[in-house]
Formats: sequence, C-alpha cells, structure tokens
Amino acid sequence: MLDLRHTLRRPVRMTPKEPVARCGDLTLSYEQLYERVSRLANGLLSLGLEKGDRVAVLALNCHRFLELYYGTMFAGLAIVPLNVRWGAQEFAFALSDCRPKVFALDATVYEHLKPYIEQLKFLGVERFLFLGEEQEGVPEGMIAYEKLLQSASPEDPDIDVHEEDLVGLFYTSGTTGNPKGVMLTHKNLMMNAYHAQIAFEFRDERTYLHAAPMFHLADGAATFTVTWNGGIHAFVPRFDPEAVLKAIERYRVTSVTLIPTMINWLLNHPGVERFDLSSLQKIMYGASPMPVDRLKEAMKVFRCKFQQGYGMTEAAPLVTVLTAEDHERALAEGREGILSSAGRPIAGVEVRVVDDEGRDVGVGETGEVLVRGPNIMKGYWNRPEETQEALRGGWYHTKDMARWDEEGYLYIVDRKDDMIITGGENVYSTEVEEVLYRHPAVLEAAVIGVPDPDWIQAIKAVVVLKEGQSATERELIEHCRQHLSPYKVPKSVDFVKELPKGGTGKILKSVLREEYRRRYGSQES
Amino acid sequence: MLDLRHTLRRPVRMTPKEPVARCGDLTLSYEQLYERVSRLANGLLSLGLEKGDRVAVLALNCHRFLELYYGTMFAGLAIVPLNVRWGAQEFAFALSDCRPKVFALDATVYEHLKPYIEQLKFLGVERFLFLGEEQEGVPEGMIAYEKLLQSASPEDPDIDVHEEDLVGLFYTSGTTGNPKGVMLTHKNLMMNAYHAQIAFEFRDERTYLHAAPMFHLADGAATFTVTWNGGIHAFVPRFDPEAVLKAIERYRVTSVTLIPTMINWLLNHPGVERFDLSSLQKIMYGASPMPVDRLKEAMKVFRCKFQQGYGMTEAAPLVTVLTAEDHERALAEGREGILSSAGRPIAGVEVRVVDDEGRDVGVGETGEVLVRGPNIMKGYWNRPEETQEALRGGWYHTKDMARWDEEGYLYIVDRKDDMIITGGENVYSTEVEEVLYRHPAVLEAAVIGVPDPDWIQAIKAVVVLKEGQSATERELIEHCRQHLSPYKVPKSVDFVKELPKGGTGKILKSVLREEYRRRYGSQES
Repeated sequence: MLDLRHTLRRPVRMTPKEPVARCGDLTLSYEQLYERVSRLANGLLSLGLEKGDRVAVLALNCHRFLELYYGTMFAGLAIVPLNVRWGAQEFAFALSDCRPKVFALDATVYEHLKPYIEQLKFLGVERFLFLGEEQEGVPEGMIAYEKLLQSASPEDPDIDVHEEDLVGLFYTSGTTGNPKGVMLTHKNLMMNAYHAQIAFEFRDERTYLHAAPMFHLADGAATFTVTWNGGIHAFVPRFDPEAVLKAIERYRVTSVTLIPTMINWLLNHPGVERFDLSSLQKIMYGASPMPVDRLKEAMKVFRCKFQQGYGMTEAAPLVTVLTAEDHERALAEGREGILSSAGRPIAGVEVRVVDDEGRDVGVGETGEVLVRGPNIMKGYWNRPEETQEALRGGWYHTKDMARWDEEGYLYIVDRKDDMIITGGENVYSTEVEEVLYRHPAVLEAAVIGVPDPDWIQAIKAVVVLKEGQSATERELIEHCRQHLSPYKVPKSVDFVKELPKGGTGKILKSVLREEYRRRYGSQES
Repeated sequence: MLDLRHTLRRPVRMTPKEPVARCGDLTLSYEQLYERVSRLANGLLSLGLEKGDRVAVLALNCHRFLELYYGTMFAGLAIVPLNVRWGAQEFAFALSDCRPKVFALDATVYEHLKPYIEQLKFLGVERFLFLGEEQEGVPEGMIAYEKLLQSASPEDPDIDVHEEDLVGLFYTSGTTGNPKGVMLTHKNLMMNAYHAQIAFEFRDERTYLHAAPMFHLADGAATFTVTWNGGIHAFVPRFDPEAVLKAIERYRVTSVTLIPTMINWLLNHPGVERFDLSSLQKIMYGASPMPVDRLKEAMKVFRCKFQQGYGMTEAAPLVTVLTAEDHERALAEGREGILSSAGRPIAGVEVRVVDDEGRDVGVGETGEVLVRGPNIMKGYWNRPEETQEALRGGWYHTKDMARWDEEGYLYIVDRKDDMIITGGENVYSTEVEEVLYRHPAVLEAAVIGVPDPDWIQAIKAVVVLKEGQSATERELIEHCRQHLSPYKVPKSVDFVKELPKGGTGKILKSVLREEYRRRYGSQES
C-alpha cells in the first residue's frame, strides 16, 4: 500500500531529534513536528470532521502550512490549498464546489478576506481556523490553531487509509472559465515523491526553501520528498527577492524551487552579490524553460546545479526533467537548443506525443502530449465528464502541444488552446511571442487569435512595454515580419499596462481571449 | 498504474541501439531484445495460452531467461522460475500446485530431467519449450524456442494489464515441508524496482552480472532496475569462481549480486589477482551478513563499494539495506558491529519488530520482524489460510527474529522457527552457531532443538569438519562453554559430511529438524 504518511513517519523513526522546519526564529525537530501533526489531526477530528471531509487552506508559506498538509492527511481529510491571488469569483466557485467544513487562514489573508467572512459561511464553511501565534488576537468566532493543538492528543491517530483515498484537492485554472479540483491520492503523491527522489537526485539535500507559494504543486513537487529524506524545510512567507536571498544565507539553504520569473528577479536584485549563497546546491525551476542567456547568467551567479521540471497538477506534478547533467552537457557541447526543451520523461512516467487521430507523431512533428503513470490524478472533483474526457484511453491528455527531438527531449510548443488557426494554418502563439520578446522595448507579450471575417482567426499581439521605452504597432509588426513567415505575423498589436496572470506568474491567455471575445461580441475565439 | 513493462519500454525508447544483454559471444541491443520479447509473447499466446496462465522455467542463467521474464509479462502470463537444485518431490509438488501450460527448459536441465518428462506431462504440462540455439538438437515433441520466435509477430502485443495482475509465482522453501508459491504482481516488482533504484543508488551502473541464479529474487532484486536504467545484463550460466572472474574482466562488469559464500569462494580462488577487476563499482550481497574479517578482505581485493540487502521473496524482495556509506563509516569509525546488521529499512518500506502480543519491542530486545509496503506479495498461490496468517493486520510476518539498535539498524537474530526453547529459556540457534564457527576445525554448523524428556527441547549441534581437521564432541562442547551462558551450550554434537542446503546455499535447518524428528519418532520438534 502506498501511504504518504510514510514520508513523515520514516524520518521520525530514523532521526527524531534532527530539525525538520525553520520558520522565522522557530526550529522544529522531527519528533516535535510529528507531535504537532498528530495533535492537529486529532484536533480536526475532535471538531466532528469525518474521513474524506475537506479542509481549505489559504495562507502564506510557513511551517503551519506544512503541518496542515500532514495533519489533514493523518486525519484522513483532504486538504484544499487555495490560491492567494484568486479573486472573489474564483473563491466562491471553489468553495461551493468542494464545500470544506473547515477554512484555515492566516492573519495576512484574514485582513483581505474580512469583508467576505459572512459570505464564506453561506458557502457551507462551518469553522474557521486562525493560523497564528497563540498570543495574537484571534478574531471572534474563529478557532485558534495553537489552542486546538494544545487541547488535542499528541498520539498519531493511525487511521485506516487506502492508497486511493484523497490527500488533497488542488484547484487548477483551466482554459475554460472555472477552476477544476484535481483529486490527488496517497498513491499519486507518494509516487511523485519517488519520482522527485530519483529525477532530482534528492539525497544530499539538507535544507529546502519554500520560496514559491506552497499552495501550488510547482513548489509541492519536492515537499514530501524533502521530509522523506529527513531534510529541513525553510520558509519565506511569499516570494520577495531580498527575503529569499536573506533566507538562503541565514538557513544555509541547499535547494529551492523557483519559476524563471523569480530567478530573473533575483538576478536583477541590486546587491545580489552581497549575500552568501555558497550553500546552494541546486535550483529546480519549472512552469517554463528559461531564455538561454538568463540561464547562463544564473548558473554563473548561483554557482549550483540547475534542474528543470515540466509537469502539471494532474500529474502530481512531475512528467519530464531536464537534468543537471543535461544543463552541463548543453553548455559544454555548445548544444544550447536542449536548454529550451522540457527535458526527457522521468523514470516511472510514460509520455506520448500524438496527432488529432491519436497516432504517435514522428520526431520534429508537433502533437498533443499524453501522460500515463501511477502519479496521474484520480480525476476532477465533481466533474465526471471532464474527467473521462481528460483521461480517455487511460492517458492524461495535457492539451500541451510539443515535439520530440532525435534524443527524446521534449519541446513544449504551445497550449493546444493557445494555438491559432488562421487561414487554415496552425500558428503556435509562443513562437510569435518569442520574436516579440526579442524587441528591446517589449517587457511582456501575449499572442492570441481574435475573430476575423477573412481569416476566421486573426493574430493579435497584446504587449506591455518596458518603462521608459516606446514602440509603435507598425514597428513591432515590421520586427515580426523580419523573423517569421508572413502568415505568422500579427495583424494587429494592442498595448496594455498589465497582462492577466495566474498563481505562478504565468500569463493567462485564456482570460485575455475571453476579454477579446466579449469585446468582439462573438462566441468564436 | 504500475506496469513492470515500463522498465523495458522506457530504455527502448531512450536508447534503442545501446546494448542490453551480453551472453557468451552474443550482444543484443534494446530494440533487438524488445523485438525478441514481443515475439516470445506473441509466440506464447499463439500456443493458446491465456491471461494468467503459468509458464514454468527451469534453466541456467542466460539471455533467454531474461527474455522469458519479460516475454511472459508482455503476454500477460505468470512466470514460475524453478529452483535447479530441487529434487523430484519439490518439482512434483510445485508443478501440481501451479499447473503450468508451458515448461521451458535448457539443454543442461533437459539432460537431468529426461527420465521424468512423461511424469511432467502427467502433472498437466502441455508443452515443452526447449531453450537453445536453433541448430542444436531439439528433443522430439518439444518446441524450439528460436523457431517459436521466428514464426511470431515482432509487434508488442500491448495487452491490457492491471497492476494487481501476477507477473510471477516464486516458490520459496518454507520451514514447513512444501514450497509455497509467492504471488508477485506488476505493482510489487515495479515498486521493488523503485526501491532498488533508490536504496542501491542505481545510476552509473553500466553492466550487471547475473552470477547468482536467476530463478531466485536475491539476483532478481536488481534485474528490472538494471533494464530500467538502460544498463547491460551479462550472464554466467551458474556460479563458478573462474567463470565469474573471467566475465567481470571480459564484460567490464560494474555491479553484481553475490551471496557471502560466493564472495568467499572468489576470495579463496587461486589467482584471483590475475584478473582485471577494475571495472567493478559495487558488490551487492545478501541472504546473510558477512563475517567482518572476510568483508574487510573482500573490500581490499575488489576495491569497490559493498551494499548488503536483507529481504525475502514475499517482499519482492528488498526490506533493509546496509549502504555503501554504512560500510565505509563502520570501518572508518571502528564500529564494526554495524557490519553484522542488516542495515536500515529502505525508503518505501516500513519495518516493525514486535513481541508475541504484537507490541513494538524496545531497542535491544528481540522480536519478530513485520514488514509493510507496496512491495509486499499479493499472497501465497492456492493458500488462502497461510496468506491470511502471513499478512494478518496488514503486515507481512517474516518469522525472522531481530532487534534494533539505537540508530535504527536491524540485527537479524534467528528464524522464529529456528529458535529453541529449552528449559523455558529462548536460545537463538545462530548465536550458538557463531561460537561453533570460531572453532578452527569447524567448516559448517547447524544448531537445532531435539526432543528431550527433561528440557522439552535439548540443543543439538550438527557439524561438518574442515578437511584434514578433527575435533571431538567433548571438545566442541567445551569450546561453547567458554563463550556462552550454560543454558545455551549444546547438549550433544553430531558430525556429518554434508548439511542440507537450499537454492542460495543456505543451510536448511527445517530439513534437519525433520530428519531428527523422524529419528526420534516424535511429533514435537
């Protein structure tokens, strides 16, 4: 039986006195964490929660978030980590979808959410758990987290668990309006722990920094593996370059997961060289490949291994990895193209790239990425039809478009939904965006298809310019014409101050398309 | 879904042209092996076999044995690797127990088995598959393996598989008369592949030598992991010191699994220093710890890492590992006691040591080893009661007696059934044996309990003396008295020429007890 509790119970047995968490000035040992997790589990059960009930968590990174991951699991409950960047609409949808009995939130979040608390109750939330130090003011009607722990038994409740039981519901912003709750089981997350162990060669890790948000599996990919290895979790409440650099120095951090934008921010941070970053052994990054120049610079500044992971919540999340050796080889052999790939399928996970008829495409041809393995989700909460559609034929259909090279490296080309069909030709939006990014005045760019009487869809670029820089529509179109086939060149360019973004800083082209669809007053995108 | 076929399909996709098998002068590439495995699967299916049917294999080590492991799996059949050391009684029992439709055997085995072929048919075997080169004489009525492959389709049949489907039945000589068929599934063996990958740090392995018999999971612990890593399998037909040393030199072998007796034989082999063993990176050994002096000598001669695994067929098989670091640390820090332990539980497997009431014992106390994990067998074939007994409470009851030390190292003390209760005191037979082994004239020793009117059981030592050496009963008893508490000293010593042994060279005390039970004419042991 695959039981995710094993990732905590094992090091508790092996190294009970060793530190497991460093949060601000607090240090917890494995036996202390185990006791707090057991108390939390018993405390939640004492509130009347039953196996399978959901516990929503909305919080910045801290040791209590880690305790909540384990505490819900040890109580047989399902955690629902919510995105701190969500708007009211998304919260309302997710909460009415999963109906958590308990909603855990910290002081920072509470300040923002105060006006809506009554509405949350209306959505079925019965209890609020306030995450904070004992002495802090606990809002009326809320349960103090530390008090709940104090009053509960310190014994592991050791409930019966089946490997297909839910550990969590992870909401993912789909391309279609409402977020979907990805159901991940003990088996899914335990198998990802094995996969991360092997693919990222977790072994000499001592201290892992939670710098990316803990509600997201980009950071969560490593969480259970770090514990399993008897490592230490360090935390910064939210990503902030100065805070991250300070934490690396203070806690002697050995590994961290970042998204490329965050690496960028660290590189651009004035005085990055003031910090002692010599403890760093590896930076894992994901969500997207990095521009080669930035990567080279990062490797120079941070002087550690770089590993890129590609995956998605539905795969719990790891699918492919561009290993540290791949990075070194690419630079040593002058084959930098590999650095723009997502790496190769990790051991344990099968990947196919197929055409519209479900046939494997040849090397260099583009198709949809399908994934199979013990890590693939049980399904979407409350969505049997979308589950069946996504998992048809026993493979998870990612809607990512990609191609293989001769050596089995996978290149993500675009989201299937972001592909534009214009005048009968397929255009991958990312290809056009890459050209736009090369223009010195462009800070951010998103390319979408908009309704057009002649072309069905016409290519539109939506661009944010760098501060103090300028460029005209004609100039950018001319720039594209120099680097792209004529049919790939945008027909129009709009300039905006900001692009819509998701939890990890990804530009949400779906939201953009929706805006333009409304603006054009059409059902077609 | 956990699918053991993945261990072959993955490297076929990643490195199709690389070698996977070296057997005599033959080298097979991954795509060649994949084709042969697919042909074998289709060939077996063309004989009318259906999902779940058993295929018995009785053969010395060779690439065809590897093909049979994969070929049966790709056809949805269950392999039943039989022990080449078995006698007629055990064969008869196992075959009538599992009723294989096909019996695969090689020329060497055939020579021994010829007189019994008709009786095998009587036991339900319908077809015989003769493993040999095409040109060799195939006995009448038998199917030539190579011809079967030639006539079958080279396409992977890609049948539907469930992770709980059987991959094989592995007969294990229990302590109670007849062997039991351990049912191992895709999930069990795939999880062991993950475990071996992590615990043995399989990564830089290139060439693994099958020196121990392939029908046994001591060797099989690494088989699927080697393939999964894109490594090379090299083979010697059976363990022979000269052949093994030659093979290491010839194939530039990097890793091998041996049992301590085999390491001993290699060390004692005249002219071991003539061979170029510089390619060796690690020796995995198991079935029992090694005497510290021999281990030190082995580390000096082979100049590579040593890793000890403890496990059993029911656990597919790995449970604990004494890592290479453990070995180095023990020697560097002068803490050689650790070398007599079985190491610590591997990541993914839970181990408890419990008393007769099922309570965890404290450090230093002896109890039975219980094991839980995704690697634990589905059960014993045709034996629901013994299955329930062995797996009661969700834990596999190993019948191994052991104790923990403060650092979580596990020391196997004895088999539960080998423990002697004499005058109300527990005596662990191995402790007495270890003392006997220290006597210069003793080659082998087995200590058992025999019926006794006063003591219920009295301690008897059965001893094989070294050639040219002599010792009397009184002398050995006196030797024991100097090193053991009085109640642990044997009451009598018998001298024999040979002790009964199992497939891996383990002394079968169960057989010995049975002999004495008959001799004493009692039902008590």
